[in-house]
Amino acid sequence: MGFHEFTIEGRNAVMEAFRSGKCIDKLYVLDGCQDGPVLSIKREAKKQDTIIRYVDKDRLDQLSQTGKHQGVIAYAAAYEYAEVEDILNAAKEKGEAPFILLLDNIEDPHNLGAIIRTAHQAGAHGIIIPKNRAVGLTATVARTSAGALNYIPVAKVTNLSKTIDELKKEGLWFAAADMDGEVMYDANLSGAIGLVIGSEGEGISRLVKEKCDFTVSIPMKGRIDSLNASVAAGVLCYEILRQRRG
Amino acid sequence: MGFHEFTIEGRNAVMEAFRSGKCIDKLYVLDGCQDGPVLSIKREAKKQDTIIRYVDKDRLDQLSQTGKHQGVIAYAAAYEYAEVEDILNAAKEKGEAPFILLLDNIEDPHNLGAIIRTAHQAGAHGIIIPKNRAVGLTATVARTSAGALNYIPVAKVTNLSKTIDELKKEGLWFAAADMDGEVMYDANLSGAIGLVIGSEGEGISRLVKEKCDFTVSIPMKGRIDSLNASVAAGVLCYEILRQRRG
Repeated sequence: MGFHEFTIEGRNAVMEAFRSGKCIDKLYVLDGCQDGPVLSIKREAKKQDTIIRYVDKDRLDQLSQTGKHQGVIAYAAAYEYAEVEDILNAAKEKGEAPFILLLDNIEDPHNLGAIIRTAHQAGAHGIIIPKNRAVGLTATVARTSAGALNYIPVAKVTNLSKTIDELKKEGLWFAAADMDGEVMYDANLSGAIGLVIGSEGEGISRLVKEKCDFTVSIPMKGRIDSLNASVAAGVLCYEILRQRRG
Repeated sequence: MGFHEFTIEGRNAVMEAFRSGKCIDKLYVLDGCQDGPVLSIKREAKKQDTIIRYVDKDRLDQLSQTGKHQGVIAYAAAYEYAEVEDILNAAKEKGEAPFILLLDNIEDPHNLGAIIRTAHQAGAHGIIIPKNRAVGLTATVARTSAGALNYIPVAKVTNLSKTIDELKKEGLWFAAADMDGEVMYDANLSGAIGLVIGSEGEGISRLVKEKCDFTVSIPMKGRIDSLNASVAAGVLCYEILRQRRG
């Protein structure tokens, strides 16, 4: 599997990509363009919850690799997304209680790649990211994952809170990583678990946090605020692994 | 304290910087230049173990911010280095057994910055880096440390092995982070400890590793090789913190 990032340009090519079911992460459209074909593409994009960005012609020209964008450029995932069910199956196949990472608002592709790498190494069965705002599985993410993206399923869901509700029915407990939580060494992180990590700046969104069963924190002995998001995810994943060893 | 990176250019300015005791991380010299003043600067640089890079005029012109480099450009540390003794004193002041990180061959400034940040948050008393090859405390390092560089002492030593010998006399035990080591959860990491971390590509150099009392590993459940250096350092630091809590 290669680390290729697709850019799809031009009206026919972009429309064809949507129709064939390719996972488009982002669609750039010429601002103010009301042509029939472009309106059809936008309709298709909305149907599939693709993020649409309206930009001016200069920006499109800049993004274009072919010089023939005709007002639309789509960014497709370099890797196929998995389904949440694939993640549960991965745990089942190993005969292990599910261990899933949910990433709320991680927007930096280097952080996402590093988290995918670490989660895989710590024995997580999969990663769930929300459709909105999060970065997709771009070439940068694949590269920083150091190959882990080939082995660990990543699912993209429309609504993280709803997914948490569904997974609770499967017996998972949800831990929100947050400064005000119980110190991780003292919390019970064994068993079927979903660990929710927020972005460095904003943390976990309120609605998602409210869905969690408890919050868990990394002790901070220093005089600054926090850890890098990928380091924090790594530290928590390995505390989970320690407790799972029994 | 600001995040300023000094570039010092021109023969007089560079010579003056060396004489005043400024910590110069790297010296760029015009290749083949045998002028008296330049030879004096090179002599001074060698005396202070500064890394010297011989480059052509185009490269120097490119690096120059003033356009008046006269064949020499020096990069000075944005932060002052501490002494190893400062680190031991920091532990003593807190009434804690020393917990020191030694970084062998970490060349990426983002990794160094992230490690400084994490080490500080996990309660380490200081960081030791070797003079050769390692990156210095540049503006990038300061920025990625998220301010931690203001609070945790970083010492730069000529010979990491010799420093380990000296610290052993102070009662420290040295753990080399390596794939073939004892699983960290089972190793005894409490008490006065020096944790040695190598670079992602090359690991810890043989001589330094031989000086260590034992090797310790992070369990890898995934199908790829390793973790990002700053994540690995974070996971190990926090396992040390867990064991220190008693």
